[in-house]
Amino acid sequence: MGIAPFRHFIESQQLDREFLFSLFRDADDMRSNPKKYSGSLERKILATIFYEPSTRTRFSFEIAMLRLGGQVVSTENAREFSSAVKGESIEDTARIVGAYADGIVIRHHEEGAVRRASEVSPAPVINGGDGKGQHPSQALLDVYTIYRERDWLDSFKIAMVGDLASGRTVRSLAYLLGKFNDVSITFVSPPHLRMGDDIKGYLKKHGVEFSESESLAETLPEMDIIYMTRIQKERMNAAEYALAKGKFVINEKTLQLIRKDARLLHPLPHGEEIDLPLEVERKDPRIAYFRQAENGLYIRMALLRSLLGGNS
Amino acid sequence: MGIAPFRHFIESQQLDREFLFSLFRDADDMRSNPKKYSGSLERKILATIFYEPSTRTRFSFEIAMLRLGGQVVSTENAREFSSAVKGESIEDTARIVGAYADGIVIRHHEEGAVRRASEVSPAPVINGGDGKGQHPSQALLDVYTIYRERDWLDSFKIAMVGDLASGRTVRSLAYLLGKFNDVSITFVSPPHLRMGDDIKGYLKKHGVEFSESESLAETLPEMDIIYMTRIQKERMNAAEYALAKGKFVINEKTLQLIRKDARLLHPLPHGEEIDLPLEVERKDPRIAYFRQAENGLYIRMALLRSLLGGNS
Amino acid sequence: MGIAPFRHFIESQQLDREFLFSLFRDADDMRSNPKKYSGSLERKILATIFYEPSTRTRFSFEIAMLRLGGQVVSTENAREFSSAVKGESIEDTARIVGAYADGIVIRHHEEGAVRRASEVSPAPVINGGDGKGQHPSQALLDVYTIYRERDWLDSFKIAMVGDLASGRTVRSLAYLLGKFNDVSITFVSPPHLRMGDDIKGYLKKHGVEFSESESLAETLPEMDIIYMTRIQKERMNAAEYALAKGKFVINEKTLQLIRKDARLLHPLPHGEEIDLPLEVERKDPRIAYFRQAENGLYIRMALLRSLLGGNS
Repeated sequence: MGIAPFRHFIESQQLDREFLFSLFRDADDMRSNPKKYSGSLERKILATIFYEPSTRTRFSFEIAMLRLGGQVVSTENAREFSSAVKGESIEDTARIVGAYADGIVIRHHEEGAVRRASEVSPAPVINGGDGKGQHPSQALLDVYTIYRERDWLDSFKIAMVGDLASGRTVRSLAYLLGKFNDVSITFVSPPHLRMGDDIKGYLKKHGVEFSESESLAETLPEMDIIYMTRIQKERMNAAEYALAKGKFVINEKTLQLIRKDARLLHPLPHGEEIDLPLEVERKDPRIAYFRQAENGLYIRMALLRSLLGGNS
Repeated sequence: MGIAPFRHFIESQQLDREFLFSLFRDADDMRSNPKKYSGSLERKILATIFYEPSTRTRFSFEIAMLRLGGQVVSTENAREFSSAVKGESIEDTARIVGAYADGIVIRHHEEGAVRRASEVSPAPVINGGDGKGQHPSQALLDVYTIYRERDWLDSFKIAMVGDLASGRTVRSLAYLLGKFNDVSITFVSPPHLRMGDDIKGYLKKHGVEFSESESLAETLPEMDIIYMTRIQKERMNAAEYALAKGKFVINEKTLQLIRKDARLLHPLPHGEEIDLPLEVERKDPRIAYFRQAENGLYIRMALLRSLLGGNS
Repeated sequence: MGIAPFRHFIESQQLDREFLFSLFRDADDMRSNPKKYSGSLERKILATIFYEPSTRTRFSFEIAMLRLGGQVVSTENAREFSSAVKGESIEDTARIVGAYADGIVIRHHEEGAVRRASEVSPAPVINGGDGKGQHPSQALLDVYTIYRERDWLDSFKIAMVGDLASGRTVRSLAYLLGKFNDVSITFVSPPHLRMGDDIKGYLKKHGVEFSESESLAETLPEMDIIYMTRIQKERMNAAEYALAKGKFVINEKTLQLIRKDARLLHPLPHGEEIDLPLEVERKDPRIAYFRQAENGLYIRMALLRSLLGGNS
């Protein structure tokens, strides 16, 4: 069983290879033998505090907790509904809720807020996404998906496509890929939405090969993994959107450029950047994003048990 | 035990007599022997996704699930809080949540949305109300109430009173009444809020006798069941409201027009259309709407077990 | 075990000494032997209905229920999300939800609303705060904290500081202090935010000594307990705020005026009225408000069991 080598899970860089593989083994076993784990977190209580709403991520953590025999208390819009409106700091919230509950998942609109909460919380804190910062449990399920789809983690070419400037998902994933061998990353984005220099610096330091491209068509045929993200139209002006529009779309035509053994990932929800008939989404084995979402349940079960299962 | 002859519960027409009566028997037994059923859905998880808030309907499903030993995850305002704001389709939500949970109750503001969700969800989907469409679990508890109050279902006269044009509750109930023998319906409404032609066509096709009236006073003395609904003032202009105001009210005076063995139903919450002192509401045996609300718990327990209890 | 001498818990005056001490003993034992109580409310369901959001109070009740083996259904913004928007009265909500659940915690924006709900609810109702009325479970945890910090309840001097006119917390606490011997209260507030005459009349009637002051500095050295509350800037005009600003603040300087064996309480969240470095908050034994918040869990467990544990 994987026992976390850390108390709080704040950023994807915390995950080393050994712990990752122990989580993957646990997640696989939980999928195969769910009953074996149905009492693993009995009498434990997880609080989910979402200052930014996200039903899917919240449900994924909550159902993972319930599947392990634990219980959940939940707030889906802490920003409006909690004492935050009376000026309560995230630290006070974490200090108090962490004294009642056995673990806390926090999503927050400010980068760094979850880390600050973890510094005072008596109970383990998990980052469920913090502003433009990270979304490390998403990165965890992403690499778990790559592991399952390819049967191993090293030696592959991955394209990250879309809005790389503000996407915390791709940030967390890029940090995590720095842990593996022989990985090559191509960042595909319009010029104004390029991956940040902090990530690039980190990759250089860790010897991860990467390049940048503005052409999806040129990139697709080379890739083992294509990681699509939303072009966030609402954050651009008309001129900027014109630079991005239609250039970064997987449709029936661009799908033909993807190798037969390659895989298409997406953190979901997807928008116009995936424009495929339902039948294709269901049947084409390269479309991995629904399997990816389902993997989120099992890897979060493994993560929760590794953090909260210590002293039951 | 009733096992549903369908996978998803989307509209009241799906219910045939045989299955209805098996649900009634189960619900009666669950009321008498609650402990016998307290582990029926152990380890099962129900997700409630409400794009339109409704605390009472949501609580009714959630408590039904808990009383059967199951667990619940919940969102009370999916329209604002979920990825719906990022453009996630109901289909994607259902596909993903249906892979985590064992069942989903969806309330949605768009007619037909719940059916679309059911077409892709890996887990059973229950319609908790869809726009102007249906609210079939309400119809189920309505007929269960008629069954309990009258000891049988066929051969009665029912008035449906109020806003029949946009009320999904009366729509679902009218469809369901088409399954019974010797039922006669009187639709009582202001002229601009009449029951839709789709329902009338369905009733004709199924040989159900119905008529229309604009007078509550003339109708009441004939009826076995009076099914009141809210006049939705907010949807009318002043002239329209003047046509409806005060004409469709049960007060101490109009209550005298109702037969001693008749029953007054209402899906609740009620507004000015029920204007009775608390003492009368509590003591008059004809006032059945609080018993009706309580019936909702037991019939939803029976429904949930019939849909989710198959492969435990 | 403490069994409540009342069915609903609406105001702090309901608590007599004998029942208080039995709750304190239960709460202490629940803290020491949590496993002994982990099935105390098995199969019981608590509904929390918050018309005014308060994540912390809600979580405290919900986790207390879960720690006793019970289950929870929850609405965090009933004012917007429930049928309240369709005009459903609190009485109808309580009558219906109280028929499904085994207990209800209600927070409401109107004074007296929770009492009205309790008058018709089939299940016990707990006041989780009603407008400018009371917040009696907060008062309960406050006196439990005084009991734990001082090892007994009688014979102490307490200052209540801040907005005493609209704070329901101080109102509930003042009522409760009327039950003890040799307690002397000093109300410290700006002149326009003084404690109401209803409370003063009650204290006089019960022989509780009290005085009023506008100077925190003069008051602090005399006190055994300092109960701070927020100055609610948003409720004042600029002139009123000028009268309050900076006069009622515990900072490193005013902290020196507090006796070594005195204790500083606060219902939290605190704002500018507590202006201390994190290190001081953590280490100074006089700072009791985080222990106070944690006490809330155990005393609410004792309260819930006393009200819902009767016929399991």
